[in-house]
Amino acid sequence: MLLPTPIQDLINAFSRLPGIGPKTASRLTFYLLTAQDDLSQDLATALGGLKTNTAYCQTCFNITLAGQTQCEICSDEDREQDIICVVEEPLDVLAIERTQGFQGRYHVLRGVLSPIEGISPEDLKIRELISRVSTENIREVILATNPSMEGDATAMYLRQQLAPHGVNISRLALGLPVGGDLEYADQHTLLRALAGRQKMDS
Amino acid sequence: MLLPTPIQDLINAFSRLPGIGPKTASRLTFYLLTAQDDLSQDLATALGGLKTNTAYCQTCFNITLAGQTQCEICSDEDREQDIICVVEEPLDVLAIERTQGFQGRYHVLRGVLSPIEGISPEDLKIRELISRVSTENIREVILATNPSMEGDATAMYLRQQLAPHGVNISRLALGLPVGGDLEYADQHTLLRALAGRQKMDS
Repeated sequence: MLLPTPIQDLINAFSRLPGIGPKTASRLTFYLLTAQDDLSQDLATALGGLKTNTAYCQTCFNITLAGQTQCEICSDEDREQDIICVVEEPLDVLAIERTQGFQGRYHVLRGVLSPIEGISPEDLKIRELISRVSTENIREVILATNPSMEGDATAMYLRQQLAPHGVNISRLALGLPVGGDLEYADQHTLLRALAGRQKMDS
Repeated sequence: MLLPTPIQDLINAFSRLPGIGPKTASRLTFYLLTAQDDLSQDLATALGGLKTNTAYCQTCFNITLAGQTQCEICSDEDREQDIICVVEEPLDVLAIERTQGFQGRYHVLRGVLSPIEGISPEDLKIRELISRVSTENIREVILATNPSMEGDATAMYLRQQLAPHGVNISRLALGLPVGGDLEYADQHTLLRALAGRQKMDS
């Protein structure tokens, strides 16, 4: 049986999203079909406005409202101006902000170095980071790229590039996750946790 | 940090879909933001057309194209006209069609009886089913509601309602899933598999 075109169109569109297979796409589509409220219309409107109403901050390249040159964080004078946290994606900014443990500003690379996918330093906002570090009065740069192969390589590259500018460079700690179980930790994590062990003072 | 409104709007809309929590909603939204192609526009268009371009078949209440009174299956004269498979939702039709093991027609109840959710026989397409059975020349009705508490109760109710019409009434077999493992089967399934055991002829 062929599904009616409008149904199949939406299933196809949903299936193109990451982590959504054909079954989930069908379930979402049929849910929307029988949902009483105006959910599908709300979704369509929000999708329509997504790209037209947003822009990238011209300082840190995080996402901001269209028409603004600086995002909320960069234009906030109460935040520490001399420390920059470098992340891969806007979602990473969100994750760090949620901890409420960082009061500085960010720099979003918009990706990681990946020779396999053909992503080289010119494709990322690295030149802009160097320019910020050399013109603004920056004390410390935290390299908060993911602890993955690409994230580590990107951090190494950035360390090389930033070294001549005489700025403190740090990387997020690696170790056991809070509430985690030693027994279930993979050996790489456990090795890093051992290597990075902290002295306990009495 | 507050997210820009266009982003938060879409995250909120995605979160209202079943099985999509705030984290998945954020991931989908940020994916759409950086996706190179016109995916978000395609999605918006498909969503907009979902309800306006579809309608319910006036015979079996499955989904069909707007403007058609009968769905593809009901209007197909090659299918067996005297056997009706009763299912809860349009997605169930799809599941059975995928097996290619049923050549009759369907009747979609558009839900199940559920006193807790206040769904009574009048809320389902039961009157329409009885009317089909009494006016068309129907030989058998397969009650293919889910093997859940509500599905079973609905099937029992339908059996009572259909009994006076002198039609054969059947229910899908219950037992171990193909490729399943006896060891991991729950006791209810195992009990049903035992009770429904089939004689093996040599």
